[in-house]
Amino acid sequence: MFIQHFEEIITLTNGIKLISITDSVEKFVKSSKIKNGVLNLSILHTSASLIIQENADPDVQKDLINFYDKLAPMNNSLYIHITEGNDDMPAHIKSSLTNTNLTLSVKNFKLQLGNWQGIFLFEHRLESQKRTVFLHLLGEL
Amino acid sequence: MFIQHFEEIITLTNGIKLISITDSVEKFVKSSKIKNGVLNLSILHTSASLIIQENADPDVQKDLINFYDKLAPMNNSLYIHITEGNDDMPAHIKSSLTNTNLTLSVKNFKLQLGNWQGIFLFEHRLESQKRTVFLHLLGEL
Amino acid sequence: MFIQHFEEIITLTNGIKLISITDSVEKFVKSSKIKNGVLNLSILHTSASLIIQENADPDVQKDLINFYDKLAPMNNSLYIHITEGNDDMPAHIKSSLTNTNLTLSVKNFKLQLGNWQGIFLFEHRLESQKRTVFLHLLGEL
Repeated sequence: MFIQHFEEIITLTNGIKLISITDSVEKFVKSSKIKNGVLNLSILHTSASLIIQENADPDVQKDLINFYDKLAPMNNSLYIHITEGNDDMPAHIKSSLTNTNLTLSVKNFKLQLGNWQGIFLFEHRLESQKRTVFLHLLGEL
Repeated sequence: MFIQHFEEIITLTNGIKLISITDSVEKFVKSSKIKNGVLNLSILHTSASLIIQENADPDVQKDLINFYDKLAPMNNSLYIHITEGNDDMPAHIKSSLTNTNLTLSVKNFKLQLGNWQGIFLFEHRLESQKRTVFLHLLGEL
Repeated sequence: MFIQHFEEIITLTNGIKLISITDSVEKFVKSSKIKNGVLNLSILHTSASLIIQENADPDVQKDLINFYDKLAPMNNSLYIHITEGNDDMPAHIKSSLTNTNLTLSVKNFKLQLGNWQGIFLFEHRLESQKRTVFLHLLGEL
């Protein structure tokens, strides 16, 4: 029998950072009792995003942050949209380069991630934000 | 009862631009009568793409266009594939950096988008093009 | 009746390259006998990724490889995470800029791809790797 489950993960952020949500997502999958199905994640913002990245060496996260900061610098002279702070337009750009949605598979009650893969919320704003990731699992018990 | 609905959104573009398709997508969701489900969008081209971005200040769209133009300049000396015009290879690159597919969730008849999120077709070619976005909703009445 | 099918495509890579997996994916769709459904692809790695790109002129692939190599150069002085080789951190960055997951639609037994679209595994590491792409089709016979 196919069923659907929904949940929201609320995260309070404080600055530009990658925040692992893998455990919360896996807990939701487990609690759903769904054996096989499709899991869709949506971040409901345009200045934070979702990525799947290495879960082992935290230096990878630092390098990712540095890379995106250099690619879309916080420099108002580069942008027209500057009223919301010099980190806002870079945040929109970084969001467009990564993901607003991720769709994953569940097989035999297990989220299909590689050994070195983690799911991260990528915060692109400097000030503290309340971020919502919407989880939606559609599958069979 | 689970059912599936399909539709195509055809858009005539005229130059590099972000074109909101949020209303068309929401109309399709409404007309499907599906209460809860997964909505998949596919753009059937490799020189235009899909992004979810801010729907409020149109300057964000201008800055996004400028950013991607600087990142992948229309300069034939940079590319091998130049037979289709100096905007073609940059268009493929911009497409690869954004999205060909987006998967969204529908809960209680409502597409799960944040307040400031809109769905955009991102046209990367200079000349007028006819673009097809394929919509697919799988869910329960 | 809704059913689900799973499969893994294993690819041995040898260097930075785009490798078409379109035929393998379409073969899986055909063998599933599913008429209409959602197909989710997950690459279970963080230094290789998935993209949908032009399937015609192989120069497009060369230009994409060049573009990403320039954007995230193999230069250890740029990164903190350097213990796994000078191609590893660039590989993580390129993976974050492209896709770990792709969700496509199947309608009337046909994968919805444009005429010029192919599905590619994008290998970002220099040395030979064994890569797994997980396929998951959920749909109706």
